[in-house]
Amino acid sequence: MKNHEIKMEWQGDMAFEGLINGHKVRVDADESVGGNDSGPRPKPFVLVALAGCTGMDVTMILKKMRVVIEDLNISVNGTLSEEQPAQYTSMHVTYEFKGENLNLDKLTKAVELSQNQYCGVSAMYKKAIPLTYEIKII
Amino acid sequence: MKNHEIKMEWQGDMAFEGLINGHKVRVDADESVGGNDSGPRPKPFVLVALAGCTGMDVTMILKKMRVVIEDLNISVNGTLSEEQPAQYTSMHVTYEFKGENLNLDKLTKAVELSQNQYCGVSAMYKKAIPLTYEIKII
Repeated sequence: MKNHEIKMEWQGDMAFEGLINGHKVRVDADESVGGNDSGPRPKPFVLVALAGCTGMDVTMILKKMRVVIEDLNISVNGTLSEEQPAQYTSMHVTYEFKGENLNLDKLTKAVELSQNQYCGVSAMYKKAIPLTYEIKII
Repeated sequence: MKNHEIKMEWQGDMAFEGLINGHKVRVDADESVGGNDSGPRPKPFVLVALAGCTGMDVTMILKKMRVVIEDLNISVNGTLSEEQPAQYTSMHVTYEFKGENLNLDKLTKAVELSQNQYCGVSAMYKKAIPLTYEIKII
């Protein structure tokens, strides 16, 4: 059975650090709750994981389709619950593509393949919350 | 309605980078799938978010309880599905505490408060998959 294991080591106060695939990752709280802002908050990493996962899918699929893009920004907006503990209750992904004569159908096909078949982060999150997306050409 | 928004910008090939709470975060694929390993893979960030969130809770709760710890390592093991897309189907969190005369009941209380009441990442993930934990004093 395949698995991933990560380890985060306490750095004092509210900071934790670990090596993820050999790369240093640090999280910290902000000063208002006793942290030192020496790294990002942990919760937005839930969104980063999704942006990175689907982003890699889409660039790989477009490359196979021989669609050349100049740029791609992926934003993920997570709505937080009013009740405690504050948790994401829905997410919306916005794909902003830039390039010459981009074909919206092909971009849509690439995004749909990621969201419905390739992206394991999306697949897991969709079991917990609604996940929507939109595509923009800028 | 409160929300978090993150934005990741494509860096060519399979790399994406963004500022999260003002801190640079980069993800990349490994060479075998067309990446350059210039950052960690995105999927383990799902586990990092959980480790960081519950870790901050536990250190904060123990501080309020006046329990002094010397060290704390938090490991998160995510089991991946056999079927595609590979996604976490369960997670197990291991808290390793180090300190003099640590009281297991108080450590357990702090971990339970995080897992059952404080940690919004845990609360979201538990809607999708089973999440277990254990406490070790080393």
